[in-house]
Amino acid sequence: MRAEIIAVGTELLMGQVVNTNATFLSDQLTGLGYGVYYQTVVGDNVGRLRECLALASQRSELIVLTGGLGPTEDDLTRETLADFLGVDLEIDEVGLTKIERHFTLQKRVVTENNRKQALSLVGSHTLQNPTGLAVGDFYQQAGQPAYLLLPGPPSEMKPMFLEAAVPLLKEYLPQSTSLYSRVVRFFGIGESQLVTLLSNEITQQTNPTIAPYAAPNEVRLRLTVQASDEAQANQLLDTLEARIMAVAGNYFYGYGEDNSLVQETVKALREAHATVAVAESLTAGLVQSSLGKLSGVSEVFVGGFVTYSNEMKEQLLGVKAATLAEHGAVSRECAIEMASNTRRLTGADYALSLTGVAGPNEVEGQPVGTTWLALAKPDGSIMSEAFRFTRHREYIQHSAMMNALNMLRLELLNKK
Amino acid sequence: MRAEIIAVGTELLMGQVVNTNATFLSDQLTGLGYGVYYQTVVGDNVGRLRECLALASQRSELIVLTGGLGPTEDDLTRETLADFLGVDLEIDEVGLTKIERHFTLQKRVVTENNRKQALSLVGSHTLQNPTGLAVGDFYQQAGQPAYLLLPGPPSEMKPMFLEAAVPLLKEYLPQSTSLYSRVVRFFGIGESQLVTLLSNEITQQTNPTIAPYAAPNEVRLRLTVQASDEAQANQLLDTLEARIMAVAGNYFYGYGEDNSLVQETVKALREAHATVAVAESLTAGLVQSSLGKLSGVSEVFVGGFVTYSNEMKEQLLGVKAATLAEHGAVSRECAIEMASNTRRLTGADYALSLTGVAGPNEVEGQPVGTTWLALAKPDGSIMSEAFRFTRHREYIQHSAMMNALNMLRLELLNKK
Repeated sequence: MRAEIIAVGTELLMGQVVNTNATFLSDQLTGLGYGVYYQTVVGDNVGRLRECLALASQRSELIVLTGGLGPTEDDLTRETLADFLGVDLEIDEVGLTKIERHFTLQKRVVTENNRKQALSLVGSHTLQNPTGLAVGDFYQQAGQPAYLLLPGPPSEMKPMFLEAAVPLLKEYLPQSTSLYSRVVRFFGIGESQLVTLLSNEITQQTNPTIAPYAAPNEVRLRLTVQASDEAQANQLLDTLEARIMAVAGNYFYGYGEDNSLVQETVKALREAHATVAVAESLTAGLVQSSLGKLSGVSEVFVGGFVTYSNEMKEQLLGVKAATLAEHGAVSRECAIEMASNTRRLTGADYALSLTGVAGPNEVEGQPVGTTWLALAKPDGSIMSEAFRFTRHREYIQHSAMMNALNMLRLELLNKK
Repeated sequence: MRAEIIAVGTELLMGQVVNTNATFLSDQLTGLGYGVYYQTVVGDNVGRLRECLALASQRSELIVLTGGLGPTEDDLTRETLADFLGVDLEIDEVGLTKIERHFTLQKRVVTENNRKQALSLVGSHTLQNPTGLAVGDFYQQAGQPAYLLLPGPPSEMKPMFLEAAVPLLKEYLPQSTSLYSRVVRFFGIGESQLVTLLSNEITQQTNPTIAPYAAPNEVRLRLTVQASDEAQANQLLDTLEARIMAVAGNYFYGYGEDNSLVQETVKALREAHATVAVAESLTAGLVQSSLGKLSGVSEVFVGGFVTYSNEMKEQLLGVKAATLAEHGAVSRECAIEMASNTRRLTGADYALSLTGVAGPNEVEGQPVGTTWLALAKPDGSIMSEAFRFTRHREYIQHSAMMNALNMLRLELLNKK
């Protein structure tokens, strides 16, 4: 089914914002079985947006619009579409109630342009916004193309698409073209390396197909298959997955678009009924805040330390001055003391420690990227490992975080 | 002058590649004084690319095409444009020599599809490729729109644009009126509220123009002016900025596209030669890791605690059991003890504490979003403030982080 994406926003045309929405939507729509034929970006301009709608309505069966649902003067996507289709707008009560509650809690007055965000096309299927205020719309009349209206901020667009739009889009799709897909996630291997390992599978792919996506410190493979039903789809996907695991299974860590290494680590902690505490130097709280993003994590995560300076390593964690003097802060010895003292001070079952050189400058003569990780275990033993991460400061911190979580995850899995 | 960008590549429509080329080109063209009115992405398909060219040739004076200049079967942008314009292709000798040298060095034979990359429209201005093999083209006939052909890989497109295309594009412009812009950043006010305050400025805007952008917990205004030189531009921007500050100055925190509240907070700490430590509950390290992302932050940030559980608040921070029993963990009393004990334990000049309900469930009967922040100061005094944040878990954590940083930043600025 022919789909196209229209992103509305002058900031995109001025090059101030990268159009990652189009990439996300193209990826998602392709996965659902739609064929995306065009992406267009147009400014916050009624006339030009109308022209884009006129063109799209002639060539596509699904038109996804993102952006311009906000409260300001230049947010006019919904109004323009309603006018183009000759449909009225009405207030969505659920959306309005949420907006009013939001502003009451903020002790701010609800202005008219705030209410505007709860407007919805008469006869449309309104999409609520899990992470923001503007509602979305799915509008379709028999024999006409369908229009999906989504907000511009990715933090609002993505959840609304995944939670509210996907079911409608599956329904709208003719049964014949049923696509099923499975996302398989890998850590500790680069995209090019994984693709090389799988070159035979990839060159021979017809149905299922393999689409690799690289994210910082991980690679996802989306396996997509066309099948008559889910049973047949799973059979084909299982066969392909088995061949993939045969060559890359060591790097596999989980399934699913919304999964992550931190989620898999927390899952492993839950299953082991174990708790963890963390002491961070070069990551300065990145590991702990990534755990803290998950709701209900308090069952397995108690807290810990950020000992960014050497003084804090001594004062808060009781790392010996002699250790720092002899071996330096970026050393196996320091990482081990950080982990064991953290475990003792917090009483957690496991304690992770991270110490290294995030850059841009070297520390104690150690090159940028040098990192020591340690894990103190319930039996009192401590494992440690050295790394030499590359790229820039944030990437080095992210690499340290991911490897620390993976160290704990593997230890928990091996316990089984 | 009306410009538009057409990116050619099925990988973009499949969501496998982010269209950063369009962002780069939009930014560059805007800076040169062109008005970019559309960005389009179309697949490697002759028919659909022709349709895009037909449409673009009617509505734009400059059409920038990127992608599809490579050696493979599906690279057909140049051929399609030549056919659309009814212009022949000829080999560019400089480009061909470079290709031949490249393959000789690689000890590989030059195939026909390699030579293809040196093809150029007859009568065009050929652009050499500093970092790759495919040549570019700038083609313009009197009374017709101009066509700029660039390669797809950003590593080739950007150098070719900056080195070879910019001079031609400056020449093509009627008179060199340039655009200058300034980004002004605000915290503590919503986009809709800021726009309401500035409604007069915005409705009357001509030159300079005001473009608001909302990011989580902040709003940026991009002021853009068309001027003959930078001096005139700054004069016009200063005048507008003064009018904006008159109504929204209280929420202003800094300038620049790449600035942030955390950077401004660290700047204020540096200027005060002061250090900070942090104790985090609901944010679980988010404040500290956001500080840790900045290189050189060790001058002003020492570290701190993540006391996610109540036990940790007692064990690591020495919060009194009685305080937790009487007032609960989400209370002014707890926040104050967290801040003052953190300052004492770390010896930092300032100590921030954050305790609250990130959600999704309430804690100790306190609704989701309820948050207490405290700041312990060098003089031993402690200030605290209560908040009731809304939206989802991550947004509540982000709101708490931003407000804590701002609390410290304002205190440091008032010290001056």
